[in-house]
Amino acid sequence: MRATVYYGTRDVRVEDVPDATLREPTDALVRVTHAAICGSDLWPYRGELLIYGEHGRMGHEFMGVVEAVGNAVDLVKPGDLVIAPFAFSDGVCEFCSAGLHTSCVQGGYWGTTNDGGQGEAVRAPLADGTLVKLPDAVDLSDTRLATALATLTDVMGTGHHAALSAGVRPGASVVVVGDGAVGLCAVLAAKRLGAERIIIMGRHEDRLAIARTFGATDEVRERGPEGIARIRELTGGGTPHVLECVGTAQSTETAIAACRPGGTVGHVGVPAEAVRLLDLHGRNIAMRGGVAPVRAYIPELLDDVLQGRLDPSPVLDLTVALDDVPEGYAAMDERRAIKALVAVA
Amino acid sequence: MRATVYYGTRDVRVEDVPDATLREPTDALVRVTHAAICGSDLWPYRGELLIYGEHGRMGHEFMGVVEAVGNAVDLVKPGDLVIAPFAFSDGVCEFCSAGLHTSCVQGGYWGTTNDGGQGEAVRAPLADGTLVKLPDAVDLSDTRLATALATLTDVMGTGHHAALSAGVRPGASVVVVGDGAVGLCAVLAAKRLGAERIIIMGRHEDRLAIARTFGATDEVRERGPEGIARIRELTGGGTPHVLECVGTAQSTETAIAACRPGGTVGHVGVPAEAVRLLDLHGRNIAMRGGVAPVRAYIPELLDDVLQGRLDPSPVLDLTVALDDVPEGYAAMDERRAIKALVAVA
Repeated sequence: MRATVYYGTRDVRVEDVPDATLREPTDALVRVTHAAICGSDLWPYRGELLIYGEHGRMGHEFMGVVEAVGNAVDLVKPGDLVIAPFAFSDGVCEFCSAGLHTSCVQGGYWGTTNDGGQGEAVRAPLADGTLVKLPDAVDLSDTRLATALATLTDVMGTGHHAALSAGVRPGASVVVVGDGAVGLCAVLAAKRLGAERIIIMGRHEDRLAIARTFGATDEVRERGPEGIARIRELTGGGTPHVLECVGTAQSTETAIAACRPGGTVGHVGVPAEAVRLLDLHGRNIAMRGGVAPVRAYIPELLDDVLQGRLDPSPVLDLTVALDDVPEGYAAMDERRAIKALVAVA
Repeated sequence: MRATVYYGTRDVRVEDVPDATLREPTDALVRVTHAAICGSDLWPYRGELLIYGEHGRMGHEFMGVVEAVGNAVDLVKPGDLVIAPFAFSDGVCEFCSAGLHTSCVQGGYWGTTNDGGQGEAVRAPLADGTLVKLPDAVDLSDTRLATALATLTDVMGTGHHAALSAGVRPGASVVVVGDGAVGLCAVLAAKRLGAERIIIMGRHEDRLAIARTFGATDEVRERGPEGIARIRELTGGGTPHVLECVGTAQSTETAIAACRPGGTVGHVGVPAEAVRLLDLHGRNIAMRGGVAPVRAYIPELLDDVLQGRLDPSPVLDLTVALDDVPEGYAAMDERRAIKALVAVA
């Protein structure tokens, strides 16, 4: 089969690899229909975070059709349309039961030495715990719907995790740091949770335009100290809920500084940096968040997408075929696209 | 009047200074009966944190008798016995109303350029918001009671803040990092909030003995990687609530590592260090806490002390006269005492 393989900085290739097959009785074999390229895929792509190793498989966002299942799989069957969260999990351990599927005691992530999502098929371990079956009536030839559903594999759930972690509730005043796909989804998530004021910090006009349609009420284009000063001026000293959706030193500092005393920074950006605790201490700023347990959120978000109440599809503003995945990476790297959908089959 | 003045590393002196007087209509003048020396006073004493400047006044923990009040003070009057939290606050601003008195828009801290607690008298700004009146029946000649009450100015409220910040609730399993006065009070606070298992990390036998009487069920004497391994072994991978009561790089790393995925580190140690967000990210460990809004907690803790349900007095295991404050610092610095009470009048 064809799949995306990591070779090195700015060198990913779609090539022939051994076919995905069932190995464990709890596996499902999923024929991928749609995948996506994640902002975090750009970290190894840019050589900033070497999690893939040479020849590692890439992609952790996919959906598709179940082709075969092991004899211990009960909840999905061949022919089912399924969404996969970016991590697999057993669904029954202490942490899955608490909604923290990313800490599953048997769990793991797609890609690297597992099959990656950016390929024709994936062996899905712990299929009953991991995969979420779509209703039979779903028609993936509806491009907008398929695109919206693809966001549930990661970015929409990750934005939701930022909002939940920051304690966003009805009437809340919120700052979202970052206008990437996750930041935009965080705006949508905050709006969905009832936030009344949503200030997005970003500097890309096309993305800010999407943020407005997602519910952002204010935009701050300045960065660093100027951005912090502008937020403080707009809000009289910061908001109680800040959603950090980037993960750099500057974005984290900005998020903390934009947070009102006693407030919470919900952080989901993969962080390369350290935080001075003294910056949190005097104002009792809490930091909560991390890698999003997207599996926990898919059912409710899926229901909203299917009912037409939630549409994150605009964040996937480029569609490439599987063989054009390298162009998808390049377009995101060069900021010609927010995020790329891979139409596999 | 006599007061404690900072001169430099391991050089604090009790000397004559100008008498404390009323300055603003919202001031009270408090004749100090009891003060205490804080673990955080040792930072400037050791030259590690130069917050005092030369000739800065020292001490932020005191109680006493109101001697005079400005004409805008309504809630306390001359002759009242009062406790002061370690920060003053107006009691009415947005943050005080939310229980975060340490972020009061008009507030500040005792010592440095304000009167310090380790002296004969203090000008107390914002007296109505700051001071808590003790019932007339309280008899401060009851040494045990006076000692217990003195802990409410800081360490008992700070331990309580650690426990609240970490989300301790009935039945909880808790790790307390540190066996200083705050760590010991955190044990007591966790027990008071209903924790069933309380593991204290420390290595001083006299302090661990107090921890046992305060409710600790387990002790871990190892530090660093050995301490973390021992906690993980005892708890099957950490506890959901960790109370960080030291503030060093090692104690913070230990606290994060001892925390179960999805759990919360309640931190109150004055932190000199940075925390790698990546250590929090993968396991969704939250960090919550900071400088404790002790003023918010005094009423309920005071009631428990007066009713005999709460007795933190053992953490003050040395009593010195005002002129012997330097010996109190030395005893704490050399770990001959956990914490020193200053019997002023």
